[in-house]
Amino acid sequence: MIVTVWGENLHEQQHEAVQKVYPNGMHNAIAEGLRELLGEAATVRTATLDQPEHGLTDEILASTDVLTWWGHMGHDKVDDAVVTKVHQRVLEGMGLIVLHSGHFSKIFRKLMGTTCGLIWRDDDVERVWTVRPGHPITEGLPPVFTVPDTEMYGEFFDIPQPDELIFISSYGGGEVFRSGCCWSRGRGKVFYFSPGHETYPIYYQPEIRRVIANACKWAAPTTELGIRVCPHAPKGWFETNPNLGWEKKS
Amino acid sequence: MIVTVWGENLHEQQHEAVQKVYPNGMHNAIAEGLRELLGEAATVRTATLDQPEHGLTDEILASTDVLTWWGHMGHDKVDDAVVTKVHQRVLEGMGLIVLHSGHFSKIFRKLMGTTCGLIWRDDDVERVWTVRPGHPITEGLPPVFTVPDTEMYGEFFDIPQPDELIFISSYGGGEVFRSGCCWSRGRGKVFYFSPGHETYPIYYQPEIRRVIANACKWAAPTTELGIRVCPHAPKGWFETNPNLGWEKKS
Amino acid sequence: MIVTVWGENLHEQQHEAVQKVYPNGMHNAIAEGLRELLGEAATVRTATLDQPEHGLTDEILASTDVLTWWGHMGHDKVDDAVVTKVHQRVLEGMGLIVLHSGHFSKIFRKLMGTTCGLIWRDDDVERVWTVRPGHPITEGLPPVFTVPDTEMYGEFFDIPQPDELIFISSYGGGEVFRSGCCWSRGRGKVFYFSPGHETYPIYYQPEIRRVIANACKWAAPTTELGIRVCPHAPKGWFETNPNLGWEKKS
Amino acid sequence: MIVTVWGENLHEQQHEAVQKVYPNGMHNAIAEGLRELLGEAATVRTATLDQPEHGLTDEILASTDVLTWWGHMGHDKVDDAVVTKVHQRVLEGMGLIVLHSGHFSKIFRKLMGTTCGLIWRDDDVERVWTVRPGHPITEGLPPVFTVPDTEMYGEFFDIPQPDELIFISSYGGGEVFRSGCCWSRGRGKVFYFSPGHETYPIYYQPEIRRVIANACKWAAPTTELGIRVCPHAPKGWFETNPNLGWEKKS
Repeated sequence: MIVTVWGENLHEQQHEAVQKVYPNGMHNAIAEGLRELLGEAATVRTATLDQPEHGLTDEILASTDVLTWWGHMGHDKVDDAVVTKVHQRVLEGMGLIVLHSGHFSKIFRKLMGTTCGLIWRDDDVERVWTVRPGHPITEGLPPVFTVPDTEMYGEFFDIPQPDELIFISSYGGGEVFRSGCCWSRGRGKVFYFSPGHETYPIYYQPEIRRVIANACKWAAPTTELGIRVCPHAPKGWFETNPNLGWEKKS
Repeated sequence: MIVTVWGENLHEQQHEAVQKVYPNGMHNAIAEGLRELLGEAATVRTATLDQPEHGLTDEILASTDVLTWWGHMGHDKVDDAVVTKVHQRVLEGMGLIVLHSGHFSKIFRKLMGTTCGLIWRDDDVERVWTVRPGHPITEGLPPVFTVPDTEMYGEFFDIPQPDELIFISSYGGGEVFRSGCCWSRGRGKVFYFSPGHETYPIYYQPEIRRVIANACKWAAPTTELGIRVCPHAPKGWFETNPNLGWEKKS
Repeated sequence: MIVTVWGENLHEQQHEAVQKVYPNGMHNAIAEGLRELLGEAATVRTATLDQPEHGLTDEILASTDVLTWWGHMGHDKVDDAVVTKVHQRVLEGMGLIVLHSGHFSKIFRKLMGTTCGLIWRDDDVERVWTVRPGHPITEGLPPVFTVPDTEMYGEFFDIPQPDELIFISSYGGGEVFRSGCCWSRGRGKVFYFSPGHETYPIYYQPEIRRVIANACKWAAPTTELGIRVCPHAPKGWFETNPNLGWEKKS
Repeated sequence: MIVTVWGENLHEQQHEAVQKVYPNGMHNAIAEGLRELLGEAATVRTATLDQPEHGLTDEILASTDVLTWWGHMGHDKVDDAVVTKVHQRVLEGMGLIVLHSGHFSKIFRKLMGTTCGLIWRDDDVERVWTVRPGHPITEGLPPVFTVPDTEMYGEFFDIPQPDELIFISSYGGGEVFRSGCCWSRGRGKVFYFSPGHETYPIYYQPEIRRVIANACKWAAPTTELGIRVCPHAPKGWFETNPNLGWEKKS
């Protein structure tokens, strides 16, 4: 499995407080966690906003099984042409793990079809409760774990109903949030996971790393890739054309 | 619409603290709320454990559009034959609203197929958050409301994934709970709503009454009733037998 | 309830075969069916591509409870600005009924986040089977009905998993299709229904008219309208700001 | 992974036509397919109705990761005590693959909570269409495949809405069926797959074997096993009692 960890990498360049927590950038902290937990089962590489095509060239995308996405202040700086390619690649079967403020990224909103809005507040404690205990994304995790310092994300979170709801979080202020959600889009799998603000060392926390590693294993494609096109199908066509008009684009 | 409010009515007979809160029994408080909010759109009647067949005779069941169910200490006293009839009637299309400790009733467990276990604690504050804002069960409700004194019910709640998740609650202790859940079973609709402990005046609270009234409107059958049997279907049978072997049992 | 029936109205102007079947346009046939079945419960009006803003001005959209959408050869001619407004209005709570070749409309693809591709063939018989018999969209319908002449739409249909799957169709050639699908998006409800090709008199068929009328009743908003924005929420904010930052845009 | 293939093994003893197709019993044909496709990844063993405790002793169940179930004429002969143990074991996390006429088995009806009725007819051709192309159960399968001789199972199939719908079948007579369905129950995963009548060599067909093998891989538990009980949870209890009252029963 090849995982590409995409990081906006702006806060880390511009805000001293973030540099202290993530001196190598959040993307490297996330990649480090994946290497630690997935070991030889995965090749983990990174890509960032400032690279040509944001580091997501055709070659990189075509060879990526799972893409993780963290963005925030630079959502608008992401090129629409890259978003279109990532979107197409998800529909072909690439897994996508959207993290925290990535809820407002172009790619997530395009896949969801909704505003993806929520309510938010800095500085609270979060409890992450498992509501789907047999799901592979919960492997090795306790029924509940705590993120001691976090940004609160609260309902109503404007997303389509998840195909599978994995985690629900509560906060010290009494809010709740569907913090771990699975969807299928085309042949691809999408997982959103909310913990992970830039000013807290959340991506070093073992349970958080475990969730992201499990999600990569869950989201990696097991079937051959391709995208649904809209072919004419004469009677009996499916008996002699077993591919039924799926096309490989990347 | 005819609503039958079923109450176990044991705590109210045996515990002075409950008598003070519900001098006429919880079932009458629930029925009163429904009469107030549904007005002429509904005929609301009650039935209790101590009545013959627990007040759920063939005639009563056959004429009930929506049944609400509150039970706790007397779950085991409910006759299996009555449970079988209620189950069949739900599959035929009768709506069922299961309240609070009804999560462990025979009828709810039979419909869910799981243990319906949870974690619990007396005495906390509950926030009920809407996570499906356009759903008819949320009509007239704010995005969140508070139940000031409640029993905590926490995850993992061992239920099948709801077809539609309407409410998520948080508690002062940091727990969360899927407190409003919809399922379809046969032709019938089932709604579970967790607020409602016997020692608190929860069934007098306007938002709680609104949820239960909305749920009755949502769960009332709109199609003709009947139950799936397993008929032999020769080729072309469906063109001349439009009923396709559905049977009316009640 | 105010229903706006949107029709592209191009085939009817350009193809004689279609004119013969729908001399007043498909939109008027659909509107006529709704008036017949919804009676005084609904005001039904039409809008077409060639009108200013395609007939979907701010005033019209703001007063529409349910919009039905039929388009095909002119999908690309629909102004993106109108699509954005319709999208926002669905998220605010307006119901949307997408018909047949509307699967490839801009608004449907934007709400789904997928290609919405399928396989297709002209000229076959279709059987429409109910797989959710207690659902309000099936009210008054038999377990199965036949569309004698139809265009085949077959799987894989590239849509997100429906929240509720209502109908599955089979065709003479052996294909299958999820022909009636429900989703929730924001506060709005979306229903896709596939029968309805321009060269067949499908929108005069009683069962088809019944499905569309039932869908309008199901999709009409029951809660106050508004759209999720992303407000900052200080601790305790929800106790004094019960609106929680929902905004009315139309 | 340890897979236990359970077979009723009555038709094979009593009907010559079935003996000819399955001289070693259907259970052995199914087990053979699993051994062929899962290889060293799985230990595959069989159990039958006529064995003590139907071959499902505490030891066997406790060591089973995935149980497959084929039964038909002997559903009523299955001991309720065994059904209770299998049910509990599924809730603990054991995968369950229910095949064909197993739709009417005690264990499947107990897990579903519905009648599990359908319409049926012998002798037709079946097309099995994939409607969830990225799902692990579809790995290595074409978009559609044909079962040349089969028993028709048709809608309405009285099951709870599947968490994930994988396959839809059509038949020569025009019927449709949700032929591959996934549910979660407790910590366990359940898959129902309808092809497989006793008088046809369906369990020798490569695509059928592939589906069942894929389903075993999907359903095998990845998390530690246990069953939800209903513990009292004092405030803060979850911080010092990370197991949150899950119990291992088998």
